[in-house]
Amino acid sequence: MRYTISAPSTLIVNVHALRTPSQVILEEHFSAEPWAGVKVEELAAGTGENRFVRIETGKAKELTITYKATVEVTHHLVTASQLGRVAVEKMNPGLIPYLFPSRYCQSDQLGRLAWDKFGKIRNTYERVLAVADWVHRNVDYVRGSTNGSTAAYDTVIQRAGVCRDFAHLGIALCRALTIPARYFTAYAHDLEPPDFHALFEAYIGNRWMLFDATRLVPLNGVVRIGSGRDAADAAVATIFGRVRCDETTVSCKVVEKGFKALTLKELKKKGVSLDAA
Amino acid sequence: MRYTISAPSTLIVNVHALRTPSQVILEEHFSAEPWAGVKVEELAAGTGENRFVRIETGKAKELTITYKATVEVTHHLVTASQLGRVAVEKMNPGLIPYLFPSRYCQSDQLGRLAWDKFGKIRNTYERVLAVADWVHRNVDYVRGSTNGSTAAYDTVIQRAGVCRDFAHLGIALCRALTIPARYFTAYAHDLEPPDFHALFEAYIGNRWMLFDATRLVPLNGVVRIGSGRDAADAAVATIFGRVRCDETTVSCKVVEKGFKALTLKELKKKGVSLDAA
Amino acid sequence: MRYTISAPSTLIVNVHALRTPSQVILEEHFSAEPWAGVKVEELAAGTGENRFVRIETGKAKELTITYKATVEVTHHLVTASQLGRVAVEKMNPGLIPYLFPSRYCQSDQLGRLAWDKFGKIRNTYERVLAVADWVHRNVDYVRGSTNGSTAAYDTVIQRAGVCRDFAHLGIALCRALTIPARYFTAYAHDLEPPDFHALFEAYIGNRWMLFDATRLVPLNGVVRIGSGRDAADAAVATIFGRVRCDETTVSCKVVEKGFKALTLKELKKKGVSLDAA
Amino acid sequence: MRYTISAPSTLIVNVHALRTPSQVILEEHFSAEPWAGVKVEELAAGTGENRFVRIETGKAKELTITYKATVEVTHHLVTASQLGRVAVEKMNPGLIPYLFPSRYCQSDQLGRLAWDKFGKIRNTYERVLAVADWVHRNVDYVRGSTNGSTAAYDTVIQRAGVCRDFAHLGIALCRALTIPARYFTAYAHDLEPPDFHALFEAYIGNRWMLFDATRLVPLNGVVRIGSGRDAADAAVATIFGRVRCDETTVSCKVVEKGFKALTLKELKKKGVSLDAA
Repeated sequence: MRYTISAPSTLIVNVHALRTPSQVILEEHFSAEPWAGVKVEELAAGTGENRFVRIETGKAKELTITYKATVEVTHHLVTASQLGRVAVEKMNPGLIPYLFPSRYCQSDQLGRLAWDKFGKIRNTYERVLAVADWVHRNVDYVRGSTNGSTAAYDTVIQRAGVCRDFAHLGIALCRALTIPARYFTAYAHDLEPPDFHALFEAYIGNRWMLFDATRLVPLNGVVRIGSGRDAADAAVATIFGRVRCDETTVSCKVVEKGFKALTLKELKKKGVSLDAA
Repeated sequence: MRYTISAPSTLIVNVHALRTPSQVILEEHFSAEPWAGVKVEELAAGTGENRFVRIETGKAKELTITYKATVEVTHHLVTASQLGRVAVEKMNPGLIPYLFPSRYCQSDQLGRLAWDKFGKIRNTYERVLAVADWVHRNVDYVRGSTNGSTAAYDTVIQRAGVCRDFAHLGIALCRALTIPARYFTAYAHDLEPPDFHALFEAYIGNRWMLFDATRLVPLNGVVRIGSGRDAADAAVATIFGRVRCDETTVSCKVVEKGFKALTLKELKKKGVSLDAA
Repeated sequence: MRYTISAPSTLIVNVHALRTPSQVILEEHFSAEPWAGVKVEELAAGTGENRFVRIETGKAKELTITYKATVEVTHHLVTASQLGRVAVEKMNPGLIPYLFPSRYCQSDQLGRLAWDKFGKIRNTYERVLAVADWVHRNVDYVRGSTNGSTAAYDTVIQRAGVCRDFAHLGIALCRALTIPARYFTAYAHDLEPPDFHALFEAYIGNRWMLFDATRLVPLNGVVRIGSGRDAADAAVATIFGRVRCDETTVSCKVVEKGFKALTLKELKKKGVSLDAA
Repeated sequence: MRYTISAPSTLIVNVHALRTPSQVILEEHFSAEPWAGVKVEELAAGTGENRFVRIETGKAKELTITYKATVEVTHHLVTASQLGRVAVEKMNPGLIPYLFPSRYCQSDQLGRLAWDKFGKIRNTYERVLAVADWVHRNVDYVRGSTNGSTAAYDTVIQRAGVCRDFAHLGIALCRALTIPARYFTAYAHDLEPPDFHALFEAYIGNRWMLFDATRLVPLNGVVRIGSGRDAADAAVATIFGRVRCDETTVSCKVVEKGFKALTLKELKKKGVSLDAA
């Protein structure tokens, strides 16, 4: 990522792959250039916590941030029937914030729409699948159609967006239906053109289940970066000051031999992909 | 609080006083009526965590929620000069979310306004005081002028609101200035007419400092209920379904003999009130 | 209408029935009280033009506005087949503004939604009927659910509103489909509870055809007050200053003996009601 | 202007210079290419009325629109003292719509802000000058910072925009102050880089007075294209369908020998530029 800086600014960057039991980082490298005058602070993060880097640009006029990693990801498959058995979840207090509206997911405004469209589906897993399908059918994927202030509220009307907008709308509808839902960013295999990707998770049974309303990537080809309520929590870079992003280059390759991409279609036949937190 | 329910709904209620080292609950009572058919679940909360109650209304057509407590609150005063000494805070990772925009605090949109108005003030504490003063001077307190979807974005334009709107705008401006800020609800002594109150805190030095842009209550006459990024996290009641609030009655009395209300004016002379988390 | 005035203010009031070839005013009376110190100016209006009254409140603290009229209304019925014959209208330049977005009808944002839902219907009249039906099915009529700043943009999401919101959404969808559409206010027979009503017209063939997405009143029981692009142009009262409306009482009775209310259902069988401009 | 068309669409184009007594078109040329299959209809416009062209793209995949004209413009100067004499205007009914909020000028939301900032200035001309100055001081001119849905509501918060945003905010504030105000587009001498320009007019005394909150062009170097309530009425192109603008090239040269640019600074000394409608 290359930035032009017109006044001393602060960036909070979130590009490091998350460390979780099912996502082990074999190797990684991070750099911010120039070093001179730029203050870089990596914030301590526990297992499963977003790995933020805080950068004070000082007098630098340009900034180049590089991150490379090799990551081993394990996915669990859960069969739909298993999910079907868990009728009502015990609500863990930690889940409550994922029921509340957030910057880009105004679930408080979507109650009537959500219950009208999905209220008759009893099974929670099928309900969220229907949400993801509805978003997929009703929103067009159009590069450049939205910007950093676009929220689920807008996407309901404009019916166009990019991955982050698809995720936000999916999340907002789930929350309106009293289903905890959260956002995450990822490096994704096979995304065309390559870029950061955004997906969403819904808490069903007693697990966070993975959904991608864009249907652009195999669900097992995803390396998780940051989670949160929405893009505000997991932005690749949050900028305080006068900074312009000039270029972002992302590349994601599968190293494993014999890797088999699991599309939603195949998953629907067999079961459902699950990411451990 | 009295509710009319037109379809089976879920409520997440947050009216219990927070338990913190400086806020000890001597006695409390909570009830939801009717009991029959209504499922009430108190979620486990650690010290300093919001105490949520989840209510499934079932077939009830009405619901009355009552909470009473006697609470002992200790306040710490910090002198402005002490705060002045702490030039830049070490950013604890737990504070990062309080820098991000949220449902009602679109700090991402307020950067130019905030830096233009407050950028020249170097001392962080004075900067936040200036924010609170600006909100007080530019926003009129007008009952009924806003509703549950009003956010800081709107208040900048409409220049009218209630306590929650004052707090949201103060928070959004702080975050735009890279100062962590959060929202909290409270029972407040001397609020006229009596109601729930909302205030905000900014993280200065290494403490959460208390601000009330409405100037309606003494800062030491406040019993903390819930904290969070904004009213979405600390709503008195979050409603999923068809529920109408018919009536809310709040009463808050000082039991202590010889209690002396500390207004912002007096605090400015002496120092600043501080709430331990 | 009764107002409380807290500072010298200006009101632009639009409650007079429109004069058109098909709407003849037999008798009318208008008054604003008190007269002393209040400046009332009736603006000259041609046939078919909104009849505005401009009121400068001066030092008055209260204001009561009264309007009474007896109006003879003629309706024309056009059969659907006649409308069907007019494939594409010659676009009169005066119609162009009714294709553009306006304060409460952000048709520029609704293109994808409108074409996705209604693009396949070829006949213009049937397309607008489908729009009115869609609004009726997807929006709940809920008193008090919206306010003076609510626009079509919001109603798409919130799915609740009053007559003005139904009209705005119908108009916005028509314009997104390149069909000129406008808003009008009316006194309406049989509205329960009695109030001002709002409807919309779409320009089909070479006529303004009448639609009521709320389905609350017979289309031939309507006395037209003001037309315009949306409620901004035809507000009952536009207030510049500090004025609060305390009470509005509307009453509308059919004088004609043997009047037969024509509901949309009956009209669908026979043809369609038409108002001459 | 070059467009790429992905589905049969309608464009309403407004690039012709306005014909008014003070703006005489000596020569002009308009073309849309390709001609084959593209239906172009020039709508009849009276003196002072916007000159719209309606284009049905048919099956064309590309469209190039060219307009060239030589225009003679006469400006009238009115001294500030003359304006000062006209204390209150007689409100012509035709002016009323310019008092109402519109798509991009939500004056209904800005009452408190406007009266708080400008309420104490008694002279109407000075009041509008103060509005234009305030917009100039508080909004940064930043190319690419806004898009076609940005309105005055947003600019109050974001404090950045282009000429159209400056005009919208100026208009909205005037209307909130009960001063009729309108928007117009223009070809402008000396605009750097060359582009369409947008300005605003306020009705003071009994004339439309010209203001440019951007201060980017001499007020006498302007050829008027379209007027209206805001950019919705005077958009260079309103698109119904799937059309992308690829390129816009504007060039505006002064033919007159000895032309003297009149900046706002000079005008302030002498009087004020005025455009006849």
